[in-house]
Amino acid sequence: MRMMAQDAWRRLGDSRVARLATATSSGRPQVVPITFVVDADRIFTAVDAKPKTTRDLQRVRNVRKNPRVAVLADHYDDDWSSLWWVRADGAASVIDDPRAMEAPIRLLAGRYPQYHDQPPGGPVIAIEVDHVTGWAAS
Amino acid sequence: MRMMAQDAWRRLGDSRVARLATATSSGRPQVVPITFVVDADRIFTAVDAKPKTTRDLQRVRNVRKNPRVAVLADHYDDDWSSLWWVRADGAASVIDDPRAMEAPIRLLAGRYPQYHDQPPGGPVIAIEVDHVTGWAAS
Repeated sequence: MRMMAQDAWRRLGDSRVARLATATSSGRPQVVPITFVVDADRIFTAVDAKPKTTRDLQRVRNVRKNPRVAVLADHYDDDWSSLWWVRADGAASVIDDPRAMEAPIRLLAGRYPQYHDQPPGGPVIAIEVDHVTGWAAS
Repeated sequence: MRMMAQDAWRRLGDSRVARLATATSSGRPQVVPITFVVDADRIFTAVDAKPKTTRDLQRVRNVRKNPRVAVLADHYDDDWSSLWWVRADGAASVIDDPRAMEAPIRLLAGRYPQYHDQPPGGPVIAIEVDHVTGWAAS
């Protein structure tokens, strides 16, 4: 059944992991797992110290050229009566100014103790959410 | 660290759930959780009886107009040393001919006992995978 937007938003905000889908301007999709934090109607995620070969990541390149993104949180269980998912669609922007990154990185470190010792270096992707959809089996 | 392609493919094939990212031809991404089965270098997923308001789903419309898709399986744990993800990129097509759907639906029902009583009605999305990437924290 369809979820109420508030319920969907709460479930997304409570999830520890989500998946960020971006696309090149020619429509080639990409999807990666993300840590994130919800703040008002925005979602913040950051390029972090989990080993990456580069900070010039495809997700960042995609967002710079095509701001449309989708963020998905879902719950899987072999008992399909407990399945649910929530998707937030929005417009993303890249924050790479160190001062502008401070507040979102503080929010992320507040949510993930793993970031205390090694805060994400950024850039930060900020998503203005304009639509939330959710579905639950029961 | 980057995964060997074989290891990545095996982890994806062993996952019970993955996420399918598609995009409209204008580059608007969409992402949904999917059940799926791997067969040779293809991934099959089907529109199933988990309540949907319609079979004319966005993912199906997207694939018909823009075959590029990405499929992600990931493992999250608060112990970040056990994180991993695998992404398969490929070209998708929609199978809606009942006879052509039989084999993939049989594969899906072989993998998910939940489909025994209520096999997916389709259509089936078949993905020819051309690239597999994987990352594991350790």
